[in-house]
Amino acid sequence: MWPTDRLQKLLGIEHPVLQAPMAGASTPAMAIAVANAGGMGALGCAMMSAEQLRAAAVEVAAGTTRAVNFNFFVHEEPDLAKHAAEPMHEALKPYYADYGLGEPVAPKAGAPSFDDEILEALLACAPKVASFHFGLPKAHVVEALKRAGAKLIGNATNVTEAKALEVGGMNAIVAQGAEAGGHRGAFFGAPHENDMGTMALVPLVVDAVRVPVIAAGGIFDGRGVAAAFMLGASGVQIGTAFLRSPESAAAVLHKQALAGTPDNATKLTRLFSGRPARSISNRLVRELAAHEADAAPFPTQRAVIAPLAKAAETQGSADFMQLWSGQAGLRAEAAPSAEIFRRICDEALALLR
Amino acid sequence: MWPTDRLQKLLGIEHPVLQAPMAGASTPAMAIAVANAGGMGALGCAMMSAEQLRAAAVEVAAGTTRAVNFNFFVHEEPDLAKHAAEPMHEALKPYYADYGLGEPVAPKAGAPSFDDEILEALLACAPKVASFHFGLPKAHVVEALKRAGAKLIGNATNVTEAKALEVGGMNAIVAQGAEAGGHRGAFFGAPHENDMGTMALVPLVVDAVRVPVIAAGGIFDGRGVAAAFMLGASGVQIGTAFLRSPESAAAVLHKQALAGTPDNATKLTRLFSGRPARSISNRLVRELAAHEADAAPFPTQRAVIAPLAKAAETQGSADFMQLWSGQAGLRAEAAPSAEIFRRICDEALALLR
Repeated sequence: MWPTDRLQKLLGIEHPVLQAPMAGASTPAMAIAVANAGGMGALGCAMMSAEQLRAAAVEVAAGTTRAVNFNFFVHEEPDLAKHAAEPMHEALKPYYADYGLGEPVAPKAGAPSFDDEILEALLACAPKVASFHFGLPKAHVVEALKRAGAKLIGNATNVTEAKALEVGGMNAIVAQGAEAGGHRGAFFGAPHENDMGTMALVPLVVDAVRVPVIAAGGIFDGRGVAAAFMLGASGVQIGTAFLRSPESAAAVLHKQALAGTPDNATKLTRLFSGRPARSISNRLVRELAAHEADAAPFPTQRAVIAPLAKAAETQGSADFMQLWSGQAGLRAEAAPSAEIFRRICDEALALLR
Repeated sequence: MWPTDRLQKLLGIEHPVLQAPMAGASTPAMAIAVANAGGMGALGCAMMSAEQLRAAAVEVAAGTTRAVNFNFFVHEEPDLAKHAAEPMHEALKPYYADYGLGEPVAPKAGAPSFDDEILEALLACAPKVASFHFGLPKAHVVEALKRAGAKLIGNATNVTEAKALEVGGMNAIVAQGAEAGGHRGAFFGAPHENDMGTMALVPLVVDAVRVPVIAAGGIFDGRGVAAAFMLGASGVQIGTAFLRSPESAAAVLHKQALAGTPDNATKLTRLFSGRPARSISNRLVRELAAHEADAAPFPTQRAVIAPLAKAAETQGSADFMQLWSGQAGLRAEAAPSAEIFRRICDEALALLR
């Protein structure tokens, strides 16, 4: 028995364990596997066009009748006019040259922030759950999705953000500790100064809001799940643990890097996307450490690094690849998502008995 | 009932909750209060001369017959010959001038690392428990203290350090998550790259060593204590929660800063001492952020900042004071240490029932 059923009732799930959306690594197959195992499966839709979103939703619906969480980015659109591209350009020249890629490419806009075209496509999918990273969706988005019956989840890295998300209509809040892999969802204050760990963050957020709180960051087995409940969370969100599963779309080199991660080997870096995200440290992260502040604004930095990452990958190297990982990435298991999910739930339930 | 009594038996305590040593803020009165309440009281002795250590031990012995933990620093002695003092000197000039202090002082050695004179004084106190920060004490120190019947505790910020401490003879290991206030105890790798949070660190360390693990970092009430046990810890170490107690020697301005800390306001900084330590962000931390790398090696940077801190304090300002605080510093209570200790234990025991 879970200590509380708040999240189960809210989201229509059996176990209060959410698979993190992980845009680029999650797949309909992963979301389906977790949903059918009784958890909250999720699909990271931030990089999808409206057409791709529709197709993915059709695929999900064919695999499960259960609720699945569709996740989007609601970051502020970058202003490249304010960005000095020269220092990063110069720093990357030798690397581009090494791979025969010519001049480093300029930062350019990638996937846009959540907009009305995506909203329309999402509403057409009749979503039961939607979640947002990097802030609060616009008021008309919240209203439209709630009217359509969707439950909404926001992501907070500190107490101020959590309060803003509750006031803005979120039905549940992920309290994302700094241990978490991938992007910090911070939206108040400098993102790189938001470094609260799960142990401190979760109880502070629990005390500050009335909606259910979902603990995220550093949780990789049943012990972390049980600990999160002791901290007052109503559930947990787990990402990295699923990255090596067959349902994960993470690159082969990414999966290998996770398996071989030495102790204490991840780092929050802006170098891959322009926003702080936790990756296994690799050549790019190490050698360009002094250029963290020169990264182009999110997500335009992606375009700057992508050619290097691709060229290296072709040669079998993850030297420039974004190797998203939480701080316990070395514990990610090469097992089916449903099996990982069930093991974690079983361990937690045994501890919480 | 606590889930395990490993630490209670090892250290001769009733409740597996350790008061963090906090050199400069802990006092014999605090250690006595916690010890007599059934916990592990501690005295931070890193800044004490042999004479001061003897006097403090006499004071402690007069207040309690229970075990108290004597804590020391075992950092590598700094090599100032390798340090370029000019950038920090230049950066501090305007601040020194503002306070009429003349030229910034040069870095200089402060309290030495644990040495044989202190060892002799410590042995004369017949310590039941001693603990060490920033590494492993020398082999003859471990041997002498164990022969004298003392139990030894080391501090790890990652798995590699934890294994080294176990091999080196430590009887228990503090797994110090990045949420913790004051100095990161890291000694393998660049200290500022050791950023593992308590939620990820504790279970990884528990799986890697056979000695009892003590969780530290971000724990401020019974919820954190209960969570630590779920993670596999045999006990917890709590510091910041005691900083506002009447037994705390923290400066009045430090206590006020804790009470008024806004959300998410601490930062790991090298500016105060030369090693990464978590402080409430203040004017020094903010305005000299770009000079983190220019700090003199630990602990010689202390001498550089001390005159500024003192001058500002005299004028009622904490602008340059080291305001050590964990990430939940705003929850520190202005209550007697024994009362804080009992509340935390009661809350945890209720959750763990």
